[in-house]
Amino acid sequence: MTYFRDNIEKLDGYVPGEQPADADVIKLNTNENPYPPSPRVIDVLRNINPEKLRKYPQPFGDEFRTAAAKIHGVSPENIICTNGGDELLSLCVRAFCAADRALAYPVPTYSLYPVLAKIENCPAVEIPFDEQFNLPAKLAKTHAALTIVCNPNAPSATFVPINELASLADELNGVLLIDEAYADFAEDNAIRLIKDFDNVIILRSLSKGYSLAGLRFGYGIADRNLINGLIKIKDSYNADAIALAAAKAAVEDRRYFSDNIEKIKAERNRLTENLRKLGFKVARSHTNFVQAQWRSDAQELYEKLKSAGILVRYWKSPQLADKLRITVGTARQNDRLIEQLKNFGF
Amino acid sequence: MTYFRDNIEKLDGYVPGEQPADADVIKLNTNENPYPPSPRVIDVLRNINPEKLRKYPQPFGDEFRTAAAKIHGVSPENIICTNGGDELLSLCVRAFCAADRALAYPVPTYSLYPVLAKIENCPAVEIPFDEQFNLPAKLAKTHAALTIVCNPNAPSATFVPINELASLADELNGVLLIDEAYADFAEDNAIRLIKDFDNVIILRSLSKGYSLAGLRFGYGIADRNLINGLIKIKDSYNADAIALAAAKAAVEDRRYFSDNIEKIKAERNRLTENLRKLGFKVARSHTNFVQAQWRSDAQELYEKLKSAGILVRYWKSPQLADKLRITVGTARQNDRLIEQLKNFGF
Repeated sequence: MTYFRDNIEKLDGYVPGEQPADADVIKLNTNENPYPPSPRVIDVLRNINPEKLRKYPQPFGDEFRTAAAKIHGVSPENIICTNGGDELLSLCVRAFCAADRALAYPVPTYSLYPVLAKIENCPAVEIPFDEQFNLPAKLAKTHAALTIVCNPNAPSATFVPINELASLADELNGVLLIDEAYADFAEDNAIRLIKDFDNVIILRSLSKGYSLAGLRFGYGIADRNLINGLIKIKDSYNADAIALAAAKAAVEDRRYFSDNIEKIKAERNRLTENLRKLGFKVARSHTNFVQAQWRSDAQELYEKLKSAGILVRYWKSPQLADKLRITVGTARQNDRLIEQLKNFGF
Repeated sequence: MTYFRDNIEKLDGYVPGEQPADADVIKLNTNENPYPPSPRVIDVLRNINPEKLRKYPQPFGDEFRTAAAKIHGVSPENIICTNGGDELLSLCVRAFCAADRALAYPVPTYSLYPVLAKIENCPAVEIPFDEQFNLPAKLAKTHAALTIVCNPNAPSATFVPINELASLADELNGVLLIDEAYADFAEDNAIRLIKDFDNVIILRSLSKGYSLAGLRFGYGIADRNLINGLIKIKDSYNADAIALAAAKAAVEDRRYFSDNIEKIKAERNRLTENLRKLGFKVARSHTNFVQAQWRSDAQELYEKLKSAGILVRYWKSPQLADKLRITVGTARQNDRLIEQLKNFGF
């Protein structure tokens, strides 16, 4: 006997990456930014007015919307603030999908998407990427109410050119959500598409590019009709007053942001080269992590690294079992990883 | 042509109370606590470690769960942390309700419940309270998958004895969610029921009793099977690191909390007396607001108060059109309200 709906009772929840209490562990498993957030964010927290806590926050986060709109060259009305990018994903599945309205996405990708489909009890149409992670042509033919493309994609770190996403948006009858959680580390992004397509939503997150995974702040950018519909179903005050103020300070510190991104890109290239020298196959990364393919199953490697105090991400699925997803850390952390792999006898 | 599901397209979203930018307005419309949050909360923000922002938070908020469990005499596994109490409501409707699984609740009550039913596209069974706001006997007979009782109730400020809720839990086949957002201001609460009933969930919020409406933090207390099921469908990191740390500091400062509550109760009684002297019918309040019934439609009163810089809450529905919901403010704010009403010629 259960009180839950059948689909919820049967559900295996999403399993987030491990968060060890031990601060000495080198954590290259959840794509956190290795550098601290902007000092302006810390200033916001130090100087917070207790009145901001006592009162309800702005329901739509208008000050953040105005700041972000300026940066992206859109209107504040094109933006919805969410409690992490994950909340935007969940809102979209609830808004567009149902038993007779499918969710479609190419795989392998962010493993939360199928969980959200199971919670909503809607069909999930999974279209496999080819070996080079090109956008599958079949994705345009699923008749899904919502199609999600993670771009750059996780865990492959690959990038689909924006003109291909434009063609996809044009072909689809439903909504195209482009999950740009990692776009801060790529050379291009899809924001310009929202001017031409009323069915495109861009997801952005402050967790990676802005070193604010602990703050839970993300946002969506889209045609204002889509934004207004999503606002109707979000919780009244889904983004809290501190997160809104801190997020505004973070996105406005453009200099700190670009310096941070450039450091990570440089380290990413060095890490890629060093892993290749050890015999891993590593595709060019457009994110703050790399996917390193080993010549056989990588589980033992993952476990040996873990014993040595270095956490990376491993999935035991047919497409991923020979691969490790490794977050780009600081120069010192990346060196420690390479050293440790050498110690294993590579 | 719409991209949204029909039920979402047709939906009128929940309308939160006004949040005027003007700090001079006397805001007695959204049941915020008139006193600032505990100084310990401010200390947490001042001394936040940037590492807490850089990394993902604890997925289940274990430190807060442990602190709250101790206060309520339950286990940490009996607690789920949520992004405001509203998120717990939304999670429960998603977990238990569907097209063939209804949501039931007595009315009038928190006007978000019907909105959540419309979003989930499930039936909403509304059972009217009687004039004294006694628990309607019919509520046990709806066969709903989820029944919500707001206790103390908003906007009536009335309280249903806990033994009646125990009988209801016993009779129901589905889940009973007791929305205790205002329980900090009442003389009793339903937490003891979770030991005897595996179908009872208690909702708590830090918005009112702890002066933290801006922080967005709430939690649920229930049998661990219910908690584990809800955890499967929440976002992986639904409560952020700052909110978790601040909430822990707030609930642990018992002395500050009780002093604050006692001050509000004293003011509530004084406000009630003063409104009665002016000819309002005011039932005994168990919350941080009072419901003041006028001898005729109260809309003009609401509007005249607003013009005078005092915001209260007014709903133009048959059951509520002759009533104002007035948050208990500081002594000075309450005096200003009474003075203003006298100026109108009462």
